[in-house]
Amino acid sequence: MPRYRLIIEYDGAAYSGWQRQDNGPSIQNALEEAATALDGAPVLVIGAGRTDAGVHATGQVAHIDLVKTIRAEKVRDALNAHLRPHPIAVLEAIDASPDFHARFDATARSYLYRIINRRADLALDRKRAWRLAAPLDAAIMHEAAQALVGRHDFTTFRDANCQADTPVKTLTSLSVERHGEEIAVRTSARSFLHRQVRSMVGSLVEVGRGRESVGWIAEILAAADRTMCGPVAPADGLYLTAVSYEPLK
Amino acid sequence: MPRYRLIIEYDGAAYSGWQRQDNGPSIQNALEEAATALDGAPVLVIGAGRTDAGVHATGQVAHIDLVKTIRAEKVRDALNAHLRPHPIAVLEAIDASPDFHARFDATARSYLYRIINRRADLALDRKRAWRLAAPLDAAIMHEAAQALVGRHDFTTFRDANCQADTPVKTLTSLSVERHGEEIAVRTSARSFLHRQVRSMVGSLVEVGRGRESVGWIAEILAAADRTMCGPVAPADGLYLTAVSYEPLK
Repeated sequence: MPRYRLIIEYDGAAYSGWQRQDNGPSIQNALEEAATALDGAPVLVIGAGRTDAGVHATGQVAHIDLVKTIRAEKVRDALNAHLRPHPIAVLEAIDASPDFHARFDATARSYLYRIINRRADLALDRKRAWRLAAPLDAAIMHEAAQALVGRHDFTTFRDANCQADTPVKTLTSLSVERHGEEIAVRTSARSFLHRQVRSMVGSLVEVGRGRESVGWIAEILAAADRTMCGPVAPADGLYLTAVSYEPLK
Repeated sequence: MPRYRLIIEYDGAAYSGWQRQDNGPSIQNALEEAATALDGAPVLVIGAGRTDAGVHATGQVAHIDLVKTIRAEKVRDALNAHLRPHPIAVLEAIDASPDFHARFDATARSYLYRIINRRADLALDRKRAWRLAAPLDAAIMHEAAQALVGRHDFTTFRDANCQADTPVKTLTSLSVERHGEEIAVRTSARSFLHRQVRSMVGSLVEVGRGRESVGWIAEILAAADRTMCGPVAPADGLYLTAVSYEPLK
């Protein structure tokens, strides 16, 4: 059976999350229905990251096996035709080796968190960003964030429902940058704990608005205590932007 | 009665256009209802540009007169509260002189037209851009576009329903620039004819995809013949980004 790697964009606002589940429509399920319609046989879609309800993607990766052998470009176009009117698009379909695994082979995942720092409600970016009226100092947020880069016990930034074996993760990068009224938080790691990005962003905002000092992030990290975390940032602003693999995969 | 200048952002997808009308919800009407709720008396909202159904704005300007005297910041916040859940936001409210007129005093209007040049459907930018699968040469579009800059008879690029007294307008600037898969067309003029931007963009796309030569834009402009125009670009990609006034206004 030919295997394909898919790069996927979606608007997470209308879904209960990536993963197939009972309590609402999932992105995985919409993709499986489209792939099953294309292949004429049940298809399983394995994603690199299980994004939560309301979280978006511009570069989610998944793999599928089809019974039929179809040109990769045709797989992309046919999946997009079957996906309509879902706000889910297959940006690329690429021939993959039979042992490629979208989740287990991923060497890095990258996220963007968008904050819009203004008084007015969001019109065009509604459900696409977190609006915060309180003035935020992005430079101080960036400085505080550097304490999180590297290998740490991220218990403070881990959701109570997290299924990971260990709270120890290695954060490759975390940056905070202002462009006009928008603040972009970008982060990358081999893998993240459940709600780790939103927990980090919510805590950084406490520093950016002046409620906590620049050294507070290092303190709460060292405490390894979930109750020390700032309010978790809403799903609306979070985007899975890329998943990386070894070149040969 | 105190007059206020409003700077407004909206998602035009859900509206029949800026102007109050019988065939569907309008942005003007939503703003008038919000302002009337705030002031306790009927309020008229006068906009700088009457955007069509589906056209967005990040910098529409309007003026209102209120019976009550309210601090400008409070006008902005209260209008936004009354506008919910409309995808319309008042970015700024500014004290204006009693003779300020949002439409008649405007010295320039600026538009952005967003094209996303890719095979895959739009997920996050659905109804926010025009997706075109055929490869477009943005540099050639830019070159062709320069023939439109300056004072010309724009009959070719004017909708049959246009109410303007004359088809002669002065286009201040028109640029086409590619950023990855996105092509941004930006244009500015004191005023535009009805559907002029979408007519220019649709014609430039004919050049960009290689159906017409780079000199064709100058030819159809000189012909002053509406039937020579390319297919009018859809409303989805168009944004009114700014309206300019003399500093003292």
